[in-house]
Amino acid sequence: MLADTPEPPYYAVIFTSLMRDDSAGYAAMADKMLTLAQDQPGFLGVESAREEIGITVSYWADLEAIRAWKRDIDHREAQRLGRERWYAAYRTRIARVERDYGFDH
Amino acid sequence: MLADTPEPPYYAVIFTSLMRDDSAGYAAMADKMLTLAQDQPGFLGVESAREEIGITVSYWADLEAIRAWKRDIDHREAQRLGRERWYAAYRTRIARVERDYGFDH
Repeated sequence: MLADTPEPPYYAVIFTSLMRDDSAGYAAMADKMLTLAQDQPGFLGVESAREEIGITVSYWADLEAIRAWKRDIDHREAQRLGRERWYAAYRTRIARVERDYGFDH
Repeated sequence: MLADTPEPPYYAVIFTSLMRDDSAGYAAMADKMLTLAQDQPGFLGVESAREEIGITVSYWADLEAIRAWKRDIDHREAQRLGRERWYAAYRTRIARVERDYGFDH
């Protein structure tokens, strides 16, 4: 469930959003985009949770992989619908992961 | 609700976790740590959501601010309790935010 990413450095796309009240069609599109993202070159993993806000962090090998996914034709259509229908606000942050640590029982 | 961060560069701490079944005491400690973090030098904002996994992304001016918060005595006690009592697994990723964009209706 936690993304099993390789040794840094790699990149994270931190996507946070607030939904509008009517989210018809959103869940199906989110599932489709998740499936598509996982097939992209350079995709390393994803972590997602939604309460009052939604947070999706996807991990990528390099900036070129992020750029290619942003330009993907189906993803572009999803981004357009997101702005027009589903999101009240969102923010995308592109970040270089420099260090990680953790534990597992 | 979405963090109102300044122009990049700045830093993100991406903390993702799986809870154990018994989370007694966790919510109160999480609230306390959130309040404390917001008073730290260099703190820029935080975004948090939990479903199957928990994701908390905190934003910081620089690495020294992150190090100082990691060493904070109350925070160290919270980290210890997290490992001993609350988390089945967690991962902390330190990342440099290089670019961000978004929109607001």
